[in-house]
Amino acid sequence: MAQLNDIIHQPVRLRIMAILAAVSTERQVTFSFLKGTLGLTDGNLGAHLHKLEEAGFLTITKTFVRQKPQTYVEITEKGRQAFEEHRQALQELLGGA
Amino acid sequence: MAQLNDIIHQPVRLRIMAILAAVSTERQVTFSFLKGTLGLTDGNLGAHLHKLEEAGFLTITKTFVRQKPQTYVEITEKGRQAFEEHRQALQELLGGA
Repeated sequence: MAQLNDIIHQPVRLRIMAILAAVSTERQVTFSFLKGTLGLTDGNLGAHLHKLEEAGFLTITKTFVRQKPQTYVEITEKGRQAFEEHRQALQELLGGA
Repeated sequence: MAQLNDIIHQPVRLRIMAILAAVSTERQVTFSFLKGTLGLTDGNLGAHLHKLEEAGFLTITKTFVRQKPQTYVEITEKGRQAFEEHRQALQELLGGA
């Protein structure tokens, strides 16, 4: 039976991973972009990102751009694989049965 | 943005709804069948079915077959629509972005 990933399945985290997985490797996603796209508070988005970072699915990089703090979020190879497996498990579940 | 249904999204309930939605309207699904297929305890399956019943997504009918108690679970039209919308929201989320 298809194996769903509990960490990724949570709706907000599923959206985060879908966005990160869809972005080409050259482009970087900012915390602000995710916040605006998902309509979340800093605290809520931060908590979900932290959970995904703990699982090794993404990296969070804090830096400065023109003296302003900027936070970048990037999917890891492990995260990409986990998302792909989760996507396939969902497709299996939704498509057939 | 795609609207996920929180009640249906929970992994066990997603599997329950996928099974019920896939079954033709003439066939009836028993509690025992769901329990075996999903590998759940009576209590756990019962709690999830109750939640889905409360939402109006399925009906639970207790009856006797050859003097043995039998419980049938059936998806409602409302449940079928909600599952279809949820499926589409997931497909949208997983497919594109």
